Amino acid sequence: MKLVFQKDALLNGISIVSKAIPAKTTMTILECILINADANDIKLTGNDMELGIETKVEGSILERGKIALEAKLFYEIVRKLPDGNSPVTITSDNRFNTSIECENASFHIQGRDGDEFSYLPYIERDQHISLTQFTLKESIRQTIFSISPNDSNKMMAGELMEVKDDVFKVVSLDGHRISIRNIRLKDHYEDHKVIIPGKTLSEISKILNGDNEAEVQIYFSKNHILFEFGDTVVVSRLIEGEYFKIDHMLSSDYETRVKVNKREFMDNIERAMIMIRDSDRKPIILNVTDNSINMRVKSSFGSMNADMTAHKTGSDIMIAFNPKFLLDALRVIDDEDVELYMMNPKSPCFIKDEDGTYIYLILPVNFIASEV
Amino acid sequence: MKLVFQKDALLNGISIVSKAIPAKTTMTILECILINADANDIKLTGNDMELGIETKVEGSILERGKIALEAKLFYEIVRKLPDGNSPVTITSDNRFNTSIECENASFHIQGRDGDEFSYLPYIERDQHISLTQFTLKESIRQTIFSISPNDSNKMMAGELMEVKDDVFKVVSLDGHRISIRNIRLKDHYEDHKVIIPGKTLSEISKILNGDNEAEVQIYFSKNHILFEFGDTVVVSRLIEGEYFKIDHMLSSDYETRVKVNKREFMDNIERAMIMIRDSDRKPIILNVTDNSINMRVKSSFGSMNADMTAHKTGSDIMIAFNPKFLLDALRVIDDEDVELYMMNPKSPCFIKDEDGTYIYLILPVNFIASEV
Repeated sequence: MKLVFQKDALLNGISIVSKAIPAKTTMTILECILINADANDIKLTGNDMELGIETKVEGSILERGKIALEAKLFYEIVRKLPDGNSPVTITSDNRFNTSIECENASFHIQGRDGDEFSYLPYIERDQHISLTQFTLKESIRQTIFSISPNDSNKMMAGELMEVKDDVFKVVSLDGHRISIRNIRLKDHYEDHKVIIPGKTLSEISKILNGDNEAEVQIYFSKNHILFEFGDTVVVSRLIEGEYFKIDHMLSSDYETRVKVNKREFMDNIERAMIMIRDSDRKPIILNVTDNSINMRVKSSFGSMNADMTAHKTGSDIMIAFNPKFLLDALRVIDDEDVELYMMNPKSPCFIKDEDGTYIYLILPVNFIASEV
Repeated sequence: MKLVFQKDALLNGISIVSKAIPAKTTMTILECILINADANDIKLTGNDMELGIETKVEGSILERGKIALEAKLFYEIVRKLPDGNSPVTITSDNRFNTSIECENASFHIQGRDGDEFSYLPYIERDQHISLTQFTLKESIRQTIFSISPNDSNKMMAGELMEVKDDVFKVVSLDGHRISIRNIRLKDHYEDHKVIIPGKTLSEISKILNGDNEAEVQIYFSKNHILFEFGDTVVVSRLIEGEYFKIDHMLSSDYETRVKVNKREFMDNIERAMIMIRDSDRKPIILNVTDNSINMRVKSSFGSMNADMTAHKTGSDIMIAFNPKFLLDALRVIDDEDVELYMMNPKSPCFIKDEDGTYIYLILPVNFIASEV
């Protein structure tokens, strides 16, 4: 095999498919990137058997072939090649000895037979939807924080992705909170409902450029989902089973509705968090009265107290939260003001907008009023 | 005690004196910053008993006093106070209960008696030299990498600082290499020779702003050194004993002198280092012939080979090095081209300029010529 690349194009391709290289594995072939120039294109592939990424790289095929190279070493070598427009030549012989050459520098490494490498599963491309890269990247960012990857319940390590009545819905939950984003689709599609591993979503969001013009095509099959954008294809296994039924948890009743400036709310939560260290998980207590919220926390380190103006309708309420859960939700909301809907100190609090674009449900925690 | 500050000035002061707060200590008072407003100034102090830093902070004293506050908590609280020009008020009562208030946010923490805090040692300010902040900061950066903090030889954990014949000289060594910087002083001073702990130098270089106009005064006493710049004083214990005699190691004889482009040399060393991981410490081999250096490394990961143009005078030589040692020295040299002076493959290599501003001595390592 003999191929010629421009450094930047090659490095970009390696960087994309490296997202599917597992950090630790006993199967050393999974630590490799496949370079496949058997046909007319040059394709790079990374595949950890759950998540596979393939991308086309611009280059010249002087001699067809394929080779698997250890991903980390391959990336470092190409990264350190001379910058500029000098061609990068990759050659491998029939014993998989591989040379990577650019200007006066050359590297020799032992590659592996490309046939050892596992191909990506074949997905029938019929059932699909289309989104912008921006929408997909944002909806992942706005929900991924409330998955629970280490939980014994494997559903919590994934996110629900649902297409229904031309709305694209993403849901994650971890037993303490639920994050929901709804995006109206421009076209009409069939309904779909799948559970995607959190790892797939976090890796794919690193590759998406977030462009509002560029599209992503998403194809569904029974056990897999396929994302296609630009020269890249991402295939992921789905999590099997039925996702949590969340509709009955999403009450629209409330006793207290309060509107606050998001930035000011976040600043005060961050102040409260200074007083809370791992060993000492105290909640932040919100005391909502007419036109103001008093926020406080008390721990072995000391106490914090802050007052904030707010617009309340309904009853006064004193309610306590894990401050991190509030902060995680507020961070991914773009609105200047947010509205909190509460029933009582034992019932979930909702942070949501009027259109239902986002719904963040957060369970309150117990607190002893006399201690605060 | 009651003091009023501007947030930025206070945060800057805390950040400076925090450099003397030890990461781990069994004496909890050392984890504190002393705020001393007993007299007409407000001074902050951090002191780990080896290194002490004191800085003046602009502010109003409404009621005199002093208090010791846990440094990390104090820093985090002030950092998270509202930005802008709102005053920050710090109040403490006679039981050391302390309030930190700004706008609608207030923190209450338990301080400690300022009298528990160890004062900085008193240094007679007679014997001194004067340098720019830039010169001191640079000479530390250009030598600090070759101390050996964990060596059983405590001298290696420090740097020699010598004033002799109006030259300011800084030396560090770790048994494999020696780094020397010589700076001609503008004025005439008495001779001094002290060994300063590496930790002092690395912390002080973080505080120095590197300004070429601003001066640092350095005062010497038998057991301590004092640096004074702006509103800040840094006092450090010295390392006792006699530093290594290095003069006889600095031969000016050579068999081979070779001049190379520094950037290109570094790029090739970095390429070689890709092939060397912790478990596999292979050297980089330089083969110096007329007008060129061939550089190569071979390890269990593969091999790297690069040719570089060079201007050689004297004999051909093949010599091997730990590539990191070459790179460390080259990184802190500002010249576009560097000159290497070598005697034979067993004798030290010198990277130095003609004026003797810098001298980097690096010991070669053994290699088996047949294996490369």
